[in-house]
Amino acid sequence: MANTIDARLKELGITIPEAPAPAANYVPFTTSGNLVFVAGQVPFVDGKLTKTGRVGEDASVEDGHEQARICAINLIAQVKVACGGDLDRVRRVVKLGGFVASAPDFTGQPAVVNGASDLMVDVFGDAGKHARFAVGANVLPLGCVVEIDGIFEID
Amino acid sequence: MANTIDARLKELGITIPEAPAPAANYVPFTTSGNLVFVAGQVPFVDGKLTKTGRVGEDASVEDGHEQARICAINLIAQVKVACGGDLDRVRRVVKLGGFVASAPDFTGQPAVVNGASDLMVDVFGDAGKHARFAVGANVLPLGCVVEIDGIFEID
Amino acid sequence: MANTIDARLKELGITIPEAPAPAANYVPFTTSGNLVFVAGQVPFVDGKLTKTGRVGEDASVEDGHEQARICAINLIAQVKVACGGDLDRVRRVVKLGGFVASAPDFTGQPAVVNGASDLMVDVFGDAGKHARFAVGANVLPLGCVVEIDGIFEID
Repeated sequence: MANTIDARLKELGITIPEAPAPAANYVPFTTSGNLVFVAGQVPFVDGKLTKTGRVGEDASVEDGHEQARICAINLIAQVKVACGGDLDRVRRVVKLGGFVASAPDFTGQPAVVNGASDLMVDVFGDAGKHARFAVGANVLPLGCVVEIDGIFEID
Repeated sequence: MANTIDARLKELGITIPEAPAPAANYVPFTTSGNLVFVAGQVPFVDGKLTKTGRVGEDASVEDGHEQARICAINLIAQVKVACGGDLDRVRRVVKLGGFVASAPDFTGQPAVVNGASDLMVDVFGDAGKHARFAVGANVLPLGCVVEIDGIFEID
Repeated sequence: MANTIDARLKELGITIPEAPAPAANYVPFTTSGNLVFVAGQVPFVDGKLTKTGRVGEDASVEDGHEQARICAINLIAQVKVACGGDLDRVRRVVKLGGFVASAPDFTGQPAVVNGASDLMVDVFGDAGKHARFAVGANVLPLGCVVEIDGIFEID
């Protein structure tokens, strides 16, 4: 039964990266009781953005969806640390907050944030189903396309 | 004593709609302990937006206030499901997060989000008083005027 | 041992203002269990903004950093009330949510929100280290440069 989630990640071909170290006087996550609050994750791959700009301008919905998926992987990387390395301790993905850098006439933020939502359910099954918001922003840190924060419940 | 909130809703002439079913791999709410995290609600009435655009551009403050009130009704619809249909189990509206689609020079987001805040207090009395934020967004899903998420404490 | 935080505030030369009274049907904070949810704070000093506009347009990164610092002081003012005046009851700054009014090409939101993050650690030490997000907004209430909300854990 152990390492169910690790097995699923392997099946899905998803490698959870090392969680990046804190860059400032904030930390990648805090815990309070059974809740883990994970800081807003940008879609870094090996410390770099693979895409910048606004959906509807420089990035397509598909680009945004992929960037949101990367944010979700980075959220999981942080939760893994919060769980002492054991993702089977995740009881529930409680909430995702999705910010999508958007052209002024782009109104498909939910389709973009689905890139993260779908991944959470792929990885955690029913426990991956979460409340969320998906909103537009005129600009995001470093010009990234999507930023997503999260709240998780763990054992 | 039973059904106090239902009685107040009737007095106020407010009909709580059926809570819309989940549209994707996210769910309308999650619960963790006594907290209910409700997903960002857009001001759907019977599954449709009655107004789109930005406050200060295509929508007035009054429009925005009314759209925020509808978001609040939709939040209550979800909490009702979380409470097994009994809104008297709501102990506290803990937090609302209000995003207002705004023209670049519109700075009255608080007056817009008051449409939701006022409704919560009309319905729940002192228990409806909540922390909140009210911020601008350049664009929101489907072109809606307001999106609001919420955290509630229930018995 | 008593009043450790008050002593640190004095050393830092920081005066925590009286927490402003609620302006509408929302309240400056709510508590649920050990968590305090503080409403989004704008950088009021004596009830007035000392700066308005967007970073990258009317305000510099340094301006934004200072405005974020003021938001953090106002957050602490509210938490102080939540703690019955005793800031030593703060166990942890759990989460900050930072919105930065941004020119469309300004991508340094994290550097701005550091103004709040740094203050939290100056005041609370390790307990001040928090999860956070930092995002852009096209416009914020009253034209303020930064708005920040927070979640705190208290004894």
